[in-house]
Amino acid sequence: MPERHEKVVGKKINRVDAREKVSGRAKFAADVSFDRQVNCALVIAKKAHGVLKSIDASSAKKIPGVEGVFTWRDVPGENQLGDVIKDMPCLVKEGERVRFYGDVVAVVAASSKKIAEEAADLVNVEIEELKPVLTIEEAIKDEIVIHGKSNVGVSRRIRKGNASKYFENSEHIFEGDFYAHYQEQAYMETQGVIVVPDIDYGFTVYGTMQCPYYVQGAVSNVLGIPMSRVRVIQTETGGAFGGKEDIPSYVASYAAIVANNLRRPAKLIYSREIDIQTTSKRHPIKSHYKVALEGKKIKAMTIEAYMDMGAYATLTPIVIFRTLVHAAGAYEIENVDVDVYAVYTNKVPPGAFRGFGSPQVLFAVESMLDDIAVQMGFDPMEFREINTLRPGSRTSTDHLLVNSVGAPETLSRVKKASKWKELVKETEEFNKSSEEVKRGVGLSHIFYGVSLGAGGQALDKSGAHVLIDRDGSVEVRIGGTEMGQGAKTVISIIAAEELGQSMDKIVVHQPDTAFVPDSGPTVASRTTIYSGNAVKSACASLRERLASVFCELTGCRLSSVRFEDGCVYGENENKLSFDEVVEHAYKKNVKLFETGWYETPKLKFDMDNGIGEAYVTYSYASQVVQVEVDLATGYSKVIKAFTAHDVGRSVNPEGVVGQIQGGFAQGMGYAIFEDMKQKDGKIISDNFNTYIIPTVHELPKELVIDVVEDPFPEGPYGAKGIGEPSLMPVPGAVANAISMAIGKRVRRIPVTPEYVLQLLENGSSLQE
Amino acid sequence: MPERHEKVVGKKINRVDAREKVSGRAKFAADVSFDRQVNCALVIAKKAHGVLKSIDASSAKKIPGVEGVFTWRDVPGENQLGDVIKDMPCLVKEGERVRFYGDVVAVVAASSKKIAEEAADLVNVEIEELKPVLTIEEAIKDEIVIHGKSNVGVSRRIRKGNASKYFENSEHIFEGDFYAHYQEQAYMETQGVIVVPDIDYGFTVYGTMQCPYYVQGAVSNVLGIPMSRVRVIQTETGGAFGGKEDIPSYVASYAAIVANNLRRPAKLIYSREIDIQTTSKRHPIKSHYKVALEGKKIKAMTIEAYMDMGAYATLTPIVIFRTLVHAAGAYEIENVDVDVYAVYTNKVPPGAFRGFGSPQVLFAVESMLDDIAVQMGFDPMEFREINTLRPGSRTSTDHLLVNSVGAPETLSRVKKASKWKELVKETEEFNKSSEEVKRGVGLSHIFYGVSLGAGGQALDKSGAHVLIDRDGSVEVRIGGTEMGQGAKTVISIIAAEELGQSMDKIVVHQPDTAFVPDSGPTVASRTTIYSGNAVKSACASLRERLASVFCELTGCRLSSVRFEDGCVYGENENKLSFDEVVEHAYKKNVKLFETGWYETPKLKFDMDNGIGEAYVTYSYASQVVQVEVDLATGYSKVIKAFTAHDVGRSVNPEGVVGQIQGGFAQGMGYAIFEDMKQKDGKIISDNFNTYIIPTVHELPKELVIDVVEDPFPEGPYGAKGIGEPSLMPVPGAVANAISMAIGKRVRRIPVTPEYVLQLLENGSSLQE
Repeated sequence: MPERHEKVVGKKINRVDAREKVSGRAKFAADVSFDRQVNCALVIAKKAHGVLKSIDASSAKKIPGVEGVFTWRDVPGENQLGDVIKDMPCLVKEGERVRFYGDVVAVVAASSKKIAEEAADLVNVEIEELKPVLTIEEAIKDEIVIHGKSNVGVSRRIRKGNASKYFENSEHIFEGDFYAHYQEQAYMETQGVIVVPDIDYGFTVYGTMQCPYYVQGAVSNVLGIPMSRVRVIQTETGGAFGGKEDIPSYVASYAAIVANNLRRPAKLIYSREIDIQTTSKRHPIKSHYKVALEGKKIKAMTIEAYMDMGAYATLTPIVIFRTLVHAAGAYEIENVDVDVYAVYTNKVPPGAFRGFGSPQVLFAVESMLDDIAVQMGFDPMEFREINTLRPGSRTSTDHLLVNSVGAPETLSRVKKASKWKELVKETEEFNKSSEEVKRGVGLSHIFYGVSLGAGGQALDKSGAHVLIDRDGSVEVRIGGTEMGQGAKTVISIIAAEELGQSMDKIVVHQPDTAFVPDSGPTVASRTTIYSGNAVKSACASLRERLASVFCELTGCRLSSVRFEDGCVYGENENKLSFDEVVEHAYKKNVKLFETGWYETPKLKFDMDNGIGEAYVTYSYASQVVQVEVDLATGYSKVIKAFTAHDVGRSVNPEGVVGQIQGGFAQGMGYAIFEDMKQKDGKIISDNFNTYIIPTVHELPKELVIDVVEDPFPEGPYGAKGIGEPSLMPVPGAVANAISMAIGKRVRRIPVTPEYVLQLLENGSSLQE
Repeated sequence: MPERHEKVVGKKINRVDAREKVSGRAKFAADVSFDRQVNCALVIAKKAHGVLKSIDASSAKKIPGVEGVFTWRDVPGENQLGDVIKDMPCLVKEGERVRFYGDVVAVVAASSKKIAEEAADLVNVEIEELKPVLTIEEAIKDEIVIHGKSNVGVSRRIRKGNASKYFENSEHIFEGDFYAHYQEQAYMETQGVIVVPDIDYGFTVYGTMQCPYYVQGAVSNVLGIPMSRVRVIQTETGGAFGGKEDIPSYVASYAAIVANNLRRPAKLIYSREIDIQTTSKRHPIKSHYKVALEGKKIKAMTIEAYMDMGAYATLTPIVIFRTLVHAAGAYEIENVDVDVYAVYTNKVPPGAFRGFGSPQVLFAVESMLDDIAVQMGFDPMEFREINTLRPGSRTSTDHLLVNSVGAPETLSRVKKASKWKELVKETEEFNKSSEEVKRGVGLSHIFYGVSLGAGGQALDKSGAHVLIDRDGSVEVRIGGTEMGQGAKTVISIIAAEELGQSMDKIVVHQPDTAFVPDSGPTVASRTTIYSGNAVKSACASLRERLASVFCELTGCRLSSVRFEDGCVYGENENKLSFDEVVEHAYKKNVKLFETGWYETPKLKFDMDNGIGEAYVTYSYASQVVQVEVDLATGYSKVIKAFTAHDVGRSVNPEGVVGQIQGGFAQGMGYAIFEDMKQKDGKIISDNFNTYIIPTVHELPKELVIDVVEDPFPEGPYGAKGIGEPSLMPVPGAVANAISMAIGKRVRRIPVTPEYVLQLLENGSSLQE
């Protein structure tokens, strides 16, 4: 590893947006209003499946304050949504099909949100019901088909080595079925946008979102106007997790139809109920695993998995790729067959969610391995140590890993931190003396492909725009978004590192599509690498120009110039403040703005057989948790956790720790608490009184975080992603720990009290 | 001259902003409003000179709807304005001096403009009066000093050759005194801004303006915040002429104080009366000319000129440089002495105005030459032909002209178009037979330095930001502004020419300081050259990248690629639409945004002696007008005009013609109609019922425009400036024509009926 000389990177830095967010000055979508604005509410279809017969808005229009009710007839462009497959109407047309309880039929605009919502309830939507498809099993039968000719909307496979042949010759085959349920995004801030007719004779969309470029494309398409007339500016975003990847494109399209018709700003802020009822979640996945060993070495693995993709494709065709690649876990296995199918149902369409189709199968593979270890009497830690990926390994897609493979090191860190063997022994001892409360220890070990990977190469780039003002203040704009994950802080650190300007003179502004062209989505734990590299490159050009000015002024040689601590230094104790050099540069007409760009290294991948370089690199993690289960109530509680993550390089160590804490909490919610309930396709747990997410009180008192830095040469200063990998090990570790505590194999998450009690009564079960 | 192959440049193109402006969709400052906005009004000092004793806002604050009255105590940063010399308080402090009727004392914020204006009238401003300095003569005496130690605020000189020695040896010396009065900007849209606390925790200023970067600096300084927290976006601007060069910095500062204190959007739109009373105008200049000839060749010229700079320096230190350089006219003269003095008075500070200190002296020198021709019996045309600048000439600052010197050609064009000799003869014939109405023919010939010149080199650069959207639409942003002059159209043409994309897919957005760093002011007829070159360079980089994509797709050689008519062409009839190539480029992650930059060629200039390269290049014009004067009423009317302008290259011929038409009208107003009247330092002609500007009815039915294209190698496609030169020849030509008609030398503009009658009675007079 090269000697480190960074002055800002890797240091303890305050979040640059902390003050505004803590003080309440931050402007989230609901806080932003415009002159002459109307407030909107959606009219949704309240049947899971049917034909839309008529929309009667006459009563709604009579309400004082209502400015209009807009339907498919008011869409000037294409009445279609969907980023990958355009199978989703923007506003359902009369005579056409309603495919889930939540399909949008009309948008009401009124002087207040309250009036709009009241009027929306008065719009009479007549639907001729059809029998809905509500389970994966029903869907596969293809008796009722939701789109086209089959409910299997998309499928992917891996064929590595010859798994079936290996199984033929195996004596002992391990098998298991697993099910991971929905997870609701539960971002603090619901979906919301304001679409404003702007002074440039187009529309500016303000809103909470991850992917402004998707929104730009969708609005331009729905309104039938050039992209140059649609500008998208992200407002402060209170959580996203993938739930604001594609959905804001829909929200903005609804509001844009209103803004375009009324030529007034249109604001649409979702209620929590509408948000939970209609927006994306984590896909439910059912999987079947089959494993063969040679000694303690995994030799073959076959996986069949089914994803419930709901009524529309949305992002499923991309999500499925991650399910495929991660299904076999962070292990080197010679023979792997994976088949993943995504099926349409008459339910809410799941989509992107932190982990993007992989937590479900990582839970499954980690449970499967734990089950094997228990059956074979292996030490689960040793079993992983033997099989884990390491430099020189090949993944399940046969991707040869050459560098930045910190997987073994993460295992060794949690082993040491948790005092693994003692912890297991101590837990066993506890259980001997405790009747009503049992404890368990669980381990999991994961990998996670960073950035968009082989399936998303055409989106895998990022731009930056850096401008130095005359007073030396630095303005940075990137194509990536801040959604609470700390992007602004990381990007500020990188600009400060590269320019040597002090952090407090650097501003990373809210993203705006007008500054930087399509930089792909802010997803896939890619922002630090992609936007970071783009900013680095823009800053390097600016630094070079300023260095020349400094040398002209001081006579120093270019090679002696250093940018640090708000100053520029040269040989012979020459020194000028950064601001002074900038002032001189301005007088000399030096160009002090620059664009930066980073595109993904090209990946080779055979999509037909799932073989090749799936992602540019992978992050790794290992986790040990200890749980306590109340056998009487079935309530499980995590009491200790040790987690180690290979992030390549920790550009903002506080931010990395924050991500891991957040990921742990969300992963724990997924593993134990969050249980989405539906009835006839309607989500009945549609607020946080019925859909329970963990709070700080449910977190273990002991959460030990360790960061492994095995640098990724393409990443800025060696960094790779942490946003999603932080969540990934939790469900497996928790499920395995509960399995140990209750002596029954957990095969379903969330491990609700009801499920624990059922397991204790009946043994394993896979109820949805 | 190289062979022209341009496809868009030089063609007849509709103005890109015509539709919005004609249909009323264009959003000028007054049309833009923000949620929770307050409306502001200024409280001004109503004495020309005095000490501010107290400000009592108690009555004003009691008015329902008033949200606050803000004074110097509410300024968080520096309470100073002034772009060159900071001699002007933002809000006058109690105990300090009021220096003109219009100094701003307080800003009132209220729920409506009407309430704000009513409340402003109720703010009681107590001023202890001092004797005011109201004329140049009084000022020079320095008995009452307005700033520092002397009222001579700034002076400049030229010493070329040895004029005094030449005069010593001259038999016949011609002398003359001239006076050019104020001219009001009379832009259709008054000053106006809205300062908005923005989602990026700073302030965004929207408003009518020429120089967003000046506004950014001023607001940052008055609020005491970094420039990165101040963003300035120009709204559609209904005329500017220089009157929106520095003034919007003041307007925005007043509004920013309100926005900062209330944390609400603050809108300040000037009434016409406040606008005329307080904002900049053309400087009154008194000049004395002394000329010596050898035959018909001008051998020496001495000029002494005094400018009334009003109460504050504002832009006078820069304006004076143009007065200096242009005082001796468009002629090659071996010996030139020029002394220009700007003096403080207790009157409104004049500043930038189309021509920037030169129309006053160009009128004077052209009148002087005409007077000599009359005295000597020279043909005025021949007299100019002999003395005009031509390639190889040296200007009065000894600047050697090597190319793009179309001066002689403009003379020859108007000579031919007007049938000069016949016209003169025919006019003389007319006068013989007409008693009450007399006609006259006048000629003038001018040059005009393009861009900021030797005094403004540190500001003479420009940036551009060009982004191609995925659908092939092109977004262009420049540091220059559109104020009605046609910048957006010229820039669209240049982008279309360079990229081959069709005009209707190119958008030039409103300028925004966040996109492009300080690009200097939009003044000095520099936008086509500076912003144009910056856009050209950004487009060239983008074209190169798209060409590579095209070659990859088609196998064509790079050298064969052409961008034209919305398509990309290669060898062997290969052809793809521009949009298709862009779509492919997006998929390949090609960077489709770029910045462009153009900085001025360095000029060598000796400021002490006024010797050197004053400007990068010069535009030239010649004009012949015929007038008719009613001897009974003194009313003059232009009946015919012939004007020829060397613009280097006409990028947008329709735009050039439009500029010349507008410049002619404004120059004619200056020459005949526009008479600013003051009393005790107060402007009493403070609206268009008393300050008369010409309308279309006053324009001559015959206005023949001819464009000379002598390309400027540094300009895009050879272009140089036309914005200001269009106005410059008018006052001289009109004054000379009237002189011929009435047989008396006109020495003052405007040549009002009163002045004509006075001339007819008393002979020449220089009344102010």
